Amino acid sequence: MAQKPGIPKGTRDFSPAEVAKRQYIISAIKHHFETFGFQPIETPTFENSSTLMGKYGEEGDRLIFKILNSGDYLAKVDAALLENKDSVKVASQISEKALRYDLTVPFARYVVQHQNDIVFPFKRYQIQPVWRADKPQKSRYREFYQCDADVVGSKSLWQEVEFVQLYDGVFTSLGLNGVTIKINNRKILSGIAEVIGAKDKLIDFTVALDKLDKIGEDGVKKEMLEKGIGEDAIQKVQPLFNFTGSINEKLDKLNELLATSEEGLKGVEELRFICDNVAAIGLGESTLDLDVTLARGLNYYTGAIFEVSAPAGVKIGSIGGGGRYDDLTGIFGLKNMSGVGISFGLDRIYDVIEELNLFPDTVTESTKVLFINFGDKESLYAMKAVKQLRAAGIKSELYPDSAKVGKQFQHADKRGIPFAVLTGDEEINNNTFTLKNLATGEQEQVSLEELKNKIQ
Amino acid sequence: MAQKPGIPKGTRDFSPAEVAKRQYIISAIKHHFETFGFQPIETPTFENSSTLMGKYGEEGDRLIFKILNSGDYLAKVDAALLENKDSVKVASQISEKALRYDLTVPFARYVVQHQNDIVFPFKRYQIQPVWRADKPQKSRYREFYQCDADVVGSKSLWQEVEFVQLYDGVFTSLGLNGVTIKINNRKILSGIAEVIGAKDKLIDFTVALDKLDKIGEDGVKKEMLEKGIGEDAIQKVQPLFNFTGSINEKLDKLNELLATSEEGLKGVEELRFICDNVAAIGLGESTLDLDVTLARGLNYYTGAIFEVSAPAGVKIGSIGGGGRYDDLTGIFGLKNMSGVGISFGLDRIYDVIEELNLFPDTVTESTKVLFINFGDKESLYAMKAVKQLRAAGIKSELYPDSAKVGKQFQHADKRGIPFAVLTGDEEINNNTFTLKNLATGEQEQVSLEELKNKIQ
Repeated sequence: MAQKPGIPKGTRDFSPAEVAKRQYIISAIKHHFETFGFQPIETPTFENSSTLMGKYGEEGDRLIFKILNSGDYLAKVDAALLENKDSVKVASQISEKALRYDLTVPFARYVVQHQNDIVFPFKRYQIQPVWRADKPQKSRYREFYQCDADVVGSKSLWQEVEFVQLYDGVFTSLGLNGVTIKINNRKILSGIAEVIGAKDKLIDFTVALDKLDKIGEDGVKKEMLEKGIGEDAIQKVQPLFNFTGSINEKLDKLNELLATSEEGLKGVEELRFICDNVAAIGLGESTLDLDVTLARGLNYYTGAIFEVSAPAGVKIGSIGGGGRYDDLTGIFGLKNMSGVGISFGLDRIYDVIEELNLFPDTVTESTKVLFINFGDKESLYAMKAVKQLRAAGIKSELYPDSAKVGKQFQHADKRGIPFAVLTGDEEINNNTFTLKNLATGEQEQVSLEELKNKIQ
Repeated sequence: MAQKPGIPKGTRDFSPAEVAKRQYIISAIKHHFETFGFQPIETPTFENSSTLMGKYGEEGDRLIFKILNSGDYLAKVDAALLENKDSVKVASQISEKALRYDLTVPFARYVVQHQNDIVFPFKRYQIQPVWRADKPQKSRYREFYQCDADVVGSKSLWQEVEFVQLYDGVFTSLGLNGVTIKINNRKILSGIAEVIGAKDKLIDFTVALDKLDKIGEDGVKKEMLEKGIGEDAIQKVQPLFNFTGSINEKLDKLNELLATSEEGLKGVEELRFICDNVAAIGLGESTLDLDVTLARGLNYYTGAIFEVSAPAGVKIGSIGGGGRYDDLTGIFGLKNMSGVGISFGLDRIYDVIEELNLFPDTVTESTKVLFINFGDKESLYAMKAVKQLRAAGIKSELYPDSAKVGKQFQHADKRGIPFAVLTGDEEINNNTFTLKNLATGEQEQVSLEELKNKIQ
């Protein structure tokens, strides 16, 4: 019996139109990565398990897809573990390889492994799929692409300035106007923690503060108290509850607020450098904003933190994010290698562009002209012309069978092919072609040169 | 202790230069696929095991990488199987998914699953990696790319004509002149089997005949006798031992030889149609040849068989292959869907182009100009110019740190960056830039417009 075809949950087939739209976004990202001097690398789909395990926390380890060893993989497994059905311990004995979970750990591994061939500072980009055994849900897949650019080997804040420009460049070129590039700094968050006298409460604090829009100042303060943050502490950072104004106004407020925290002041200084220079160089259609509640990857980032939100009105999570980390490669034995990087969320960017109807019509355009098949003699005449059109870069096809002409026109119509060419005895004798515009129905006899020009 | 970084055997990291060279080949292939009217699809990295298992023979099943189920995957496994350490049967209980082994079976699955959305004949291309747990060896990897183009839903021989042109177009555009596109037809092989009166000996026969160059006519005949092919049978196909001449001469010989086999004569007729039309339309730098020993995928192909060999003098296996199959989608329940397709061997094509030194120098060109960092004031001035250059598509960078100038020039040198720009007080005051050609050492003061033009 024939199998019913299907694919694993959380994965996707991409149709020609979908591939074309995804490629449109990826091309824009690649183009900007490259003009900014980033160079592409690619790493294997699967890494040694030891490279990945333990790098993403306990939850991460659980979500990593493991590959079963080949051959008689059970032969050497501890019999007692099998008898106890100890899935976790048996896994480590029957699986040596695992699917890439993100592009960051493989990049760190790559840098350390190839450090003697790399010229630092090293600006690399990587656009490849990753896999996570997450529960599939709307816009969350088990296989999805990451598009990352990172620089390692320099602490210069000019990198941060560049990454803001890079985000702006990509989104502006995609016509995605009005995105907000939010920036914060880990050192400011540490400074706040210092000022409120509770390093361990920082996450509770930022999570609560982030709800200001939704639950108001009183609601936020109530939540903070419930989380064990004292009234005194809350009082000290009162200005954060009315944290509006321009970036410079916000930075001035922070300067005052964090006056007693050396680290906090350093964070303000760094942000000022980045924001001043971004302003001086200028952005396209994006806006830079300072968001003190921004705390993504708190345990990971050590300096700037970035997150990009879609244009107002589009309900979707962040469409990009990143930041600076001071010890990316330490786990693989290369110390003092500061890095900073950003990522583009391909699937969400796709959804936003689709929702705002911003994909250009030309993106999904495929074959431009279908030559109608009237039989072998006519087809040979047609194919000689098809060859010339293709050499000129025009996507051209001969309908493969000499089916009824109506059926052939229907095929062109269903595929959205805009032109058809008819070649009968008359055309062959005159060395011409009848070009039919399938939208208007108009047709005319033309030479090969005219054919090329009219279709192009 | 830090982990020693490494990757699984049979996999590869690709450096920026390697990615660029691979992309150069892939771009040429994609460009031709698209001008020929093929449309891209993508399928998931892993398929349901049931989709893949049993499709590639017993050996294939063994070489498929299986993915361990997530969670407590041992809980429901038959205890007796675990106790007996029955690796094969346990695998089917602890693994539901497996990595793509080729692009053909996923394509068949795709066509059946999405048949209501597809306009037939459907010309699709697919360029994605596949995985095989083969023993790694020179030029054989566990992860490698396949680049496939197929048409399903038409029996027209014009497709075969097009595929020969497609091979020629790609290899000619890559500067890979002198490849031989070898063609044969399954029906001719069946005809030979009919004539020698031994269908079951066909593979032995073609394998032996293929050694003609190496072991001579007597050697081949000896091997055939050893394999149980009778003297009479061998006598009947004597012309195959001196099978030289033009394609037409070979077809005439085959016509005579296969006079008693209806199927054989049909094969000759098909080949004649293809070869005549290819000749009439014309090829670029490739040669089409008829090779009756060509028998790849004998159990699979039903009509034309293609294989491409590298230019004379390059010792490497085939760099492409394909053919017609009459029932690709039957396993998934869609009958009578004839297909024909070809594949490009990316890794081997890469090796051939590298060996013949045919990669253009521009392929690995990355950043064109490095702005020397003299401090923050100068860098802001530089970055405004960098922004303009990037907008003009010129890959440009500011060295991130105000390190010693010598070190910055060294960085440019190591990375092969051809130009540097210096910006000091004088340049800022005059609104100019000092452009230095790092190959010649020449330098000159120029305006921003001149800078753009000189670098481009």
